[in-house]
Amino acid sequence: MEKAVLITIGDEILSGNTVDTNSNFIASELKNIGIKVIQILTISDEIDTIKNALNNAFEIGDLVITTGGLGPTRDDKTKKALAEYFDDEIALDEVTFNHLKGYMERRGRADILERNREQAFVPTKSIVFQNHYGTAPCMMMEQDGKLCYSLPGVPYEVKPLIKDQIIPYLQKRFRLHYIHTRIVSVVGIPESILADKIENWELALPENIALSYLPVGTRVKLRLTASGDNEELLKQQTEEEIQKLLPLVEGHVIAVSEDKIEKILAEMLTERNLTISTAESCTGGELAKMITSVSGSSKYFLGGMVAYATEKKIKILNISKDTVEQFTVVSEQVAQEMAKGCQQLFDTHISLSTTGVAGPGKGEDGKDVGTVYYTIRIHDQEVTSKLYMPHLERVDFMNFVSQKVIQDLVSLLINS
Amino acid sequence: MEKAVLITIGDEILSGNTVDTNSNFIASELKNIGIKVIQILTISDEIDTIKNALNNAFEIGDLVITTGGLGPTRDDKTKKALAEYFDDEIALDEVTFNHLKGYMERRGRADILERNREQAFVPTKSIVFQNHYGTAPCMMMEQDGKLCYSLPGVPYEVKPLIKDQIIPYLQKRFRLHYIHTRIVSVVGIPESILADKIENWELALPENIALSYLPVGTRVKLRLTASGDNEELLKQQTEEEIQKLLPLVEGHVIAVSEDKIEKILAEMLTERNLTISTAESCTGGELAKMITSVSGSSKYFLGGMVAYATEKKIKILNISKDTVEQFTVVSEQVAQEMAKGCQQLFDTHISLSTTGVAGPGKGEDGKDVGTVYYTIRIHDQEVTSKLYMPHLERVDFMNFVSQKVIQDLVSLLINS
Repeated sequence: MEKAVLITIGDEILSGNTVDTNSNFIASELKNIGIKVIQILTISDEIDTIKNALNNAFEIGDLVITTGGLGPTRDDKTKKALAEYFDDEIALDEVTFNHLKGYMERRGRADILERNREQAFVPTKSIVFQNHYGTAPCMMMEQDGKLCYSLPGVPYEVKPLIKDQIIPYLQKRFRLHYIHTRIVSVVGIPESILADKIENWELALPENIALSYLPVGTRVKLRLTASGDNEELLKQQTEEEIQKLLPLVEGHVIAVSEDKIEKILAEMLTERNLTISTAESCTGGELAKMITSVSGSSKYFLGGMVAYATEKKIKILNISKDTVEQFTVVSEQVAQEMAKGCQQLFDTHISLSTTGVAGPGKGEDGKDVGTVYYTIRIHDQEVTSKLYMPHLERVDFMNFVSQKVIQDLVSLLINS
Repeated sequence: MEKAVLITIGDEILSGNTVDTNSNFIASELKNIGIKVIQILTISDEIDTIKNALNNAFEIGDLVITTGGLGPTRDDKTKKALAEYFDDEIALDEVTFNHLKGYMERRGRADILERNREQAFVPTKSIVFQNHYGTAPCMMMEQDGKLCYSLPGVPYEVKPLIKDQIIPYLQKRFRLHYIHTRIVSVVGIPESILADKIENWELALPENIALSYLPVGTRVKLRLTASGDNEELLKQQTEEEIQKLLPLVEGHVIAVSEDKIEKILAEMLTERNLTISTAESCTGGELAKMITSVSGSSKYFLGGMVAYATEKKIKILNISKDTVEQFTVVSEQVAQEMAKGCQQLFDTHISLSTTGVAGPGKGEDGKDVGTVYYTIRIHDQEVTSKLYMPHLERVDFMNFVSQKVIQDLVSLLINS
């Protein structure tokens, strides 16, 4: 199997200013065509550091992909490092220059600056993959059958370069193995107990199938990765192993294919022709965002309400003032009335509600930070639960709660 | 200045299944106390690979922090690698075992499993930092004055370990330099033109101040990082440089301190006592989520509506049916009516609306994927803009549009 090393160049990652999402995307795309990422390295924008990293990367990998360090500004030194490492010169590439000119003109910036012109200078041995969404070209260098791609760092420039140009090239270039991945989502069993339950099954897995445990909130994803030459055989093989696994974790499995909980939900709602709406307080829109992040969600998601202020909850979601006064706004009762009001407002089969205190400040009623009540209403049945997660930071709290609400809904739908 | 290397251990990162957010958090916390992260490395869960990585890390850094690879399941080998690397044995640590027992009991799982008991086995030379939010302890090893911390991989276990235990320890342990960072947010100038405008200023920066360009959507963040022994002096020095910079980019600066656009907005709204609400279509809740991700946002954010289905837009936001029929739902006119309806529904000074097609499927009116209209309404004034971003993936599109809307609002508020 071909092995890849990803190198991220840029002080903005090292300083904690930016999260590196490119590596995640690239690793996932490469995995799909059977190339295994064996190392991801983030380094600073210095010529010697970059050359060193290239050197180490080629010792262990057949393919190196760098991102970052190709912008028009002073702190970018990747191109120089590339030329020095591959013992090459940098020269103006006419095709790239014309592409760049066209790109700038389409954006109403006919005055190409000297700095942009510099971006059309590339190592003479490089093969250029033109960037249709930015000014820095992607360059491919080759030595002793090993490949090095150098990409800009902006995620929405990286994605099309990888998907539309590099992946197709690599597929042609290497005779690639097949990789087949299946993810089984298990809920309601702590990781350690789960590990005990399936130990014998795990030990008996064929050599070409690897198992990983990926805990996400209170869900554990069991990922089976099979590799081999025959795609059909791999599919059959993993399916057989999953069939052996299922009885061991009966009643706890919420999905055997899709990975993300919002996609698992999407499949279920579409299959059953159910519609859904949300009424959020402490999750602040994250719940709606998770649901709508799935393509096609407009078929089942009719709308959501983020009712932050109590008076808006009362007015728009038709919560009774008495309930709020008697039980406070962060209460089981308010969560229930929110779900009911939401279901009526949007006229959906299912409604979800959250009310709680994300922190770090205390809630208006003195309730502790980290407390949340949420209601899942399906037709005329409802379940209300409480979570207390005081250790989570604000955004983590919003994410965790949203994940948990959708996960619980999926469990309820499976058992209904 | 102390130098740190971060090592992330785990196949879930290499396979593209999980984004590594721990490194970002740790790098940012270390920077605050003047420790510079010079490399971030992600490797797989194999003993030799881990030992190798530790070896290389200690060649360039004084401090190594590993995350991941400490769970109770079979695919975790970090502890063994640590013991081998530091020439140590693993033995049961009574204090850690009692802590673990207490942790399990509080969670109603008095039956400690053999697998969990194993987690109280640590290298005998290690100093243990107890984990209050999970079962894997954090271990610190020391050799020749260099430190190695080994942490679990779950982000909400990592954060408190770093913040409450490791950072205070490091501050005491090293006599640390001071780091002072300021971020100037510039809009409306492409990166390359900006670089030209401020070139002379940049070249004249003192040696202890570094400049980085961080483009975020259509905004460029200029980050000044100053390091030295005297905190007051650093603040003064960076302030002076910013004062020299401002005239060069006049009319384009939207903030000189806060980094995130939603925090810049938070400051402005709080200062001016303004309230805000949102009516979203294609951003699906992301706009509300961004605004509410700031602590204290309940003071100014009164509520939001995610009106996905057209009929809900009409009903709840009081959009005219005629407008939809005449101009389609993805139109300037509908964006305007949404903002107006939203302002009335939530009774706020400001309202924001988005209507568009996030894709990948075409919108209900055949409008092209990537088209969005958004309206910013402040009191009785409004501005409606159009964006066309067909190359963005669904979630990136939702994020980009939300960023842009808030950025535009900030620009409008500055100039009003």
